[in-house]
Amino acid sequence: MQVAIVLFERFTALDAVGPYEVLSRIPDAEVVFTSTRTGPVRNDVGSLALTATATLADVPHPDVIVVPGGPGQTDHMTGGPIPQWLRAADRTSTWTTSVCTGSLILAAAGLLTGRRATTHWLAMDQLAPLGALPAEERVVTDGKYVTAAGVSAGIDMALELTSRIVDATVAQAVQLGIEYDPRPPFAAGSPHAAPPEVVAVVQAYRNFILTGVH
Amino acid sequence: MQVAIVLFERFTALDAVGPYEVLSRIPDAEVVFTSTRTGPVRNDVGSLALTATATLADVPHPDVIVVPGGPGQTDHMTGGPIPQWLRAADRTSTWTTSVCTGSLILAAAGLLTGRRATTHWLAMDQLAPLGALPAEERVVTDGKYVTAAGVSAGIDMALELTSRIVDATVAQAVQLGIEYDPRPPFAAGSPHAAPPEVVAVVQAYRNFILTGVH
Repeated sequence: MQVAIVLFERFTALDAVGPYEVLSRIPDAEVVFTSTRTGPVRNDVGSLALTATATLADVPHPDVIVVPGGPGQTDHMTGGPIPQWLRAADRTSTWTTSVCTGSLILAAAGLLTGRRATTHWLAMDQLAPLGALPAEERVVTDGKYVTAAGVSAGIDMALELTSRIVDATVAQAVQLGIEYDPRPPFAAGSPHAAPPEVVAVVQAYRNFILTGVH
Repeated sequence: MQVAIVLFERFTALDAVGPYEVLSRIPDAEVVFTSTRTGPVRNDVGSLALTATATLADVPHPDVIVVPGGPGQTDHMTGGPIPQWLRAADRTSTWTTSVCTGSLILAAAGLLTGRRATTHWLAMDQLAPLGALPAEERVVTDGKYVTAAGVSAGIDMALELTSRIVDATVAQAVQLGIEYDPRPPFAAGSPHAAPPEVVAVVQAYRNFILTGVH
C-alpha cells in the first residue's frame, strides 16, 4: 500500500507528521513525501524542513493521499500542479484525505463537492463556498474522503483510517506503540471548550494563522 | 528564547515534531533542529527526513533542550558528541527535556541521576539502572528536567512547558491554534487501557520498537 503525503511550502508540520507517524507503522505501508520537486520543503514557521523524496509525477497512483494544511495552501487554491495532480491521483486512490486547511485544497480542486467535510475551526466558513458541506466534527468520513479538523486532528484521522484500511487491532497496536493516551494540561483544544479570552487571542491572529499574512 | 531539538539518525519523527509544533508557536521562540552535522536526518522508519540547520557546536547555550527518542538513541548511550554536548548545554539551559526514549540518552549522560523521570512504557525498566527514578506518568517534571512518555506525549509535555515558560493563556492559545482536542477512536493508548491481545502484539515487537533490530 502506497501513501502519498503532499508537501508544499508553508505547510504545517504536525498536519503531515501526525498521520505519517500512524500510517507508516501499518505493516507493508510505503509512505512517500511528494512535492512539485524533490528536496527540503519548508513549513509555515520557517524553521522546519521535511524532505520530499518524490516528485508528484513519480507517484501517479497512491492508494492513500494525505493533504496537510497550513497557510501555504492559499497558493494551491486556484490551479497549478498540486490540484492538477490531486484530481488525477484521486481517480485511482482508495482514500483521499486531508488535515486542517488541506481540505480547502481538496475542495477547491472540486473533490469535495456535495460531500461532508471538516477543516480548522477558523476556516470552517470557507468550505461551503467551495461546494463542500461543513461538518463540525474532528474526523469526517464521506465515502472515500476523510477530512480532519485542525493540525493535531490528523493523528485521530489516521488511526480511524488505519482501522478501516486494516482492522481495529492494528490501529490499536499503532496507538499503543505511539503511546497515544492524550492528557492535555488544559481543556482549550476547541473554541467551545477554551476560555473566551483565549478564543479571542487566537481569533485576533485568524488571518495570520490561515494565510501567513498579518 | 532559543529551543534546540536534537536530531540523530533513526529518531522518531513525532517525538520531535510534536513539541516543535507547540514550542515554535511561543512568541519570540527560535527553534533550531541541531545534529552532529547539518542536512537531512533520517527517522526510524526511514521514509522521513528532517533538516538539521545547525551543528551542535552552533548552539552551545539553548534555553530549552528537547531530546526525542527512537531506536537510534541506542547509539548515544555510551558517549559520543551528543551526550558530550548535552552535558555542556545542560549547564546553562533553563529546561532540559525529552520525549519517549530520549530520557534514556539524558539518563545515560548522567543528567537524571536521582531524578524522577518517564519514558516509553516499553522502556520503563531501563530508567532505574541508569540512575533515574522511574515514574509512570505522562509528563514528569523534576526541577528543570521534564520528561514525557512515548512519542505522542511530547505534545502534552510541550503545552505544560509552555505554561511554565510563559503562562497558561499562551499555552491554551497554542493548544487552540493546533486544535488539540484529542479524540482517539480507541482507548488503547496505554498498556493499562488497551485490550490484552493488543498489548501482546506490541510487546512481541518490543526489541524492534526500542532498538530497530528484530
